[in-house]
Amino acid sequence: LVERAQGCVFLLTDYGLSDELAGVLRATVLRHAPGAPLVDLTHGVAPFDVRAGALALARSVPHLGAGVVIGVVDPGVGGERRGLALEVSSETGPRYLVGPDNGLLIWASERLGAVDLAVHLTARPQLFGRSGSTFDGRDLFAPAAAALWNGVPIAELGATIDPAGLTRLRRPTLLVSPGSVETEVLWVDTFGNVQLSATASDAEQAALGDQGLAIEVVGGNGTFRARPASSFAAVGADEIGLIVDANGHLALVGDRTSAARTLGLEEADPVTLLAIPRGGT
Amino acid sequence: LVERAQGCVFLLTDYGLSDELAGVLRATVLRHAPGAPLVDLTHGVAPFDVRAGALALARSVPHLGAGVVIGVVDPGVGGERRGLALEVSSETGPRYLVGPDNGLLIWASERLGAVDLAVHLTARPQLFGRSGSTFDGRDLFAPAAAALWNGVPIAELGATIDPAGLTRLRRPTLLVSPGSVETEVLWVDTFGNVQLSATASDAEQAALGDQGLAIEVVGGNGTFRARPASSFAAVGADEIGLIVDANGHLALVGDRTSAARTLGLEEADPVTLLAIPRGGT
Amino acid sequence: LVERAQGCVFLLTDYGLSDELAGVLRATVLRHAPGAPLVDLTHGVAPFDVRAGALALARSVPHLGAGVVIGVVDPGVGGERRGLALEVSSETGPRYLVGPDNGLLIWASERLGAVDLAVHLTARPQLFGRSGSTFDGRDLFAPAAAALWNGVPIAELGATIDPAGLTRLRRPTLLVSPGSVETEVLWVDTFGNVQLSATASDAEQAALGDQGLAIEVVGGNGTFRARPASSFAAVGADEIGLIVDANGHLALVGDRTSAARTLGLEEADPVTLLAIPRGGT
Repeated sequence: LVERAQGCVFLLTDYGLSDELAGVLRATVLRHAPGAPLVDLTHGVAPFDVRAGALALARSVPHLGAGVVIGVVDPGVGGERRGLALEVSSETGPRYLVGPDNGLLIWASERLGAVDLAVHLTARPQLFGRSGSTFDGRDLFAPAAAALWNGVPIAELGATIDPAGLTRLRRPTLLVSPGSVETEVLWVDTFGNVQLSATASDAEQAALGDQGLAIEVVGGNGTFRARPASSFAAVGADEIGLIVDANGHLALVGDRTSAARTLGLEEADPVTLLAIPRGGT
Repeated sequence: LVERAQGCVFLLTDYGLSDELAGVLRATVLRHAPGAPLVDLTHGVAPFDVRAGALALARSVPHLGAGVVIGVVDPGVGGERRGLALEVSSETGPRYLVGPDNGLLIWASERLGAVDLAVHLTARPQLFGRSGSTFDGRDLFAPAAAALWNGVPIAELGATIDPAGLTRLRRPTLLVSPGSVETEVLWVDTFGNVQLSATASDAEQAALGDQGLAIEVVGGNGTFRARPASSFAAVGADEIGLIVDANGHLALVGDRTSAARTLGLEEADPVTLLAIPRGGT
Repeated sequence: LVERAQGCVFLLTDYGLSDELAGVLRATVLRHAPGAPLVDLTHGVAPFDVRAGALALARSVPHLGAGVVIGVVDPGVGGERRGLALEVSSETGPRYLVGPDNGLLIWASERLGAVDLAVHLTARPQLFGRSGSTFDGRDLFAPAAAALWNGVPIAELGATIDPAGLTRLRRPTLLVSPGSVETEVLWVDTFGNVQLSATASDAEQAALGDQGLAIEVVGGNGTFRARPASSFAAVGADEIGLIVDANGHLALVGDRTSAARTLGLEEADPVTLLAIPRGGT
């Protein structure tokens, strides 16, 4: 008998919660892997938004314990895109990720460690019992994840493939030069905070903030001032703050207001951060 | 001591997730049945929409393992409608369903097997500890489901009643004739896919698609062409596809667009599918 | 070795479910407390609405079993507000509550019993491993709650403080006099039911309903009639009913319609209930 994988089964999809899709996914994992602790990361990824799902998964995985991740944001379901199971060399986090080969899993996998093995989930009726081609979350990915949690070796789930050939999404824009950072909105969160692709070290490298002055933000509705701040609470009522957020990224934020709405910024919008020279207004 | 029912407690309600209603339901089950694995099927049924809840539950149950289902979409709470517990002869799925006698549970029960026993949940303060008449999910159904999960025999929960007398909803329209299927929208899912009451075998029986031609769809905003397709990915950018969905039903779908919006269709709307005759445009 | 706290970890936040915030919170609890049963009370508190979160938590706690509550509605995160862990003398409910010192936890704590110990969660990197100041749910409250569930004595989590000094929110309006109750909207639920700060005993004390007559409701869009009713089902199609709801409060309700919309009432709005004198219209 194989040994059970430790840990949880983590779920991230664009199924929403208004239908039973996420519920059937949960139930299917438990039917194949009774006793597995399920953790919903989110089912609220915008429909078909693979990039948003990939970013949310990459933000999540450093905080997960051992286990198996199922990610399903899959506009190509039923088409030629492959179903994947990945094994990563993670010390403490999830060891397996399961989902479509469309870029959803790869950033999270790399954040966890190297991809040691990639498997193309080929049709194995005795394992997956597939009944169609439109609900691979239920029919392919949940049984595969359950099998991994149950201790089935990943190589038994399909054909080993070269990790170098996995589908990748465009890398977010990030160009750092003295006094300037060209960046991009990664994420607008529930509170309207605007996460950028740039990190604190990018800002430091560009010497954006070393005079303690405000920064100029070009993007969205126009040009704005933002004040470097240590937390939301340090941002004034009518200000836009620039903070280092909980993922280590720069973020444009308001105090109990949506910075995204104030600035007119959406996910994937370009943003340029500029140092304001000494003597500037 | 009685033996504990195996499996999970599955929850489906119209409580939404913006309040603590679903949370209190979950906590109440666990307070009465510590250790029961809870699975939220959905709490997103449209408020008071018993039909939508009954359909979602019927779609879900073939994919559930052993356990007890709680269904609460219950506009008649506090009135004369009865509270129910049903025992079904299911090989692998849930054995018990608990909820109001308004049609919510019966389709799911029949999909699982025959209803062997129906019990009217009569007030039993020592078991249910009822504190009012407006939140039967918390005060009646959760304790009853927990009792069943704990192994309490169903007949101890109330008075046995005749399953033939359970409340039923109107059966969805379905009329199959040569070259024509009169059907009805069962469900518009999160992605705007339009599930119909007709199945693949209905289409076959009507010989709708045997010429490999498009099908005429009459309903919603007018008359449309739909192309039989094997999956979402096989539907062109400006097309409406007719697929067999993950529940075995015909569904009108777009490729990453909402077919419901394109066609102007809502749940319970009538739809006629017509074969286009040879030589037709 | 310390003994593990029994029961569940209950979660209430304003994180919403569209992002992975709630998921990372769940995963972090499980990473620190493997095996803890998690129960989401809700993540749908309106952003930054501490009062709504405090009321939802106070409504929930009488129905919870043993365990630890995490509450996070925390506009002041990163500022000077303290992080708290409270120990309450509860016979059957949760023994610990963790969250910000902004009034979120205190009503729930007092509903559970006396606050025996209050601890200011001071930075303890070896326990909390904090990585920033914007996501205390993940970095401070989840590890603290996990530690309590694991059996760590509360006094080890920080400095003991005086419960009398905890931050409190304004008490909702409630003024009872003969024939009149000045009250306030506590909560508009998913179905549009309007929960008031007054209870059944307040109505009795004011002798509002002792003539079996309708009651006058002043508030929102103007002046309305409401009829005392025993349940939703007893309210007529075009009526507003006044019921005793599942929390023991008076509530203005419609039959499958939103009373809040009909009356134009929102949370925290003032409402006056007036007896209609004999012979009144």
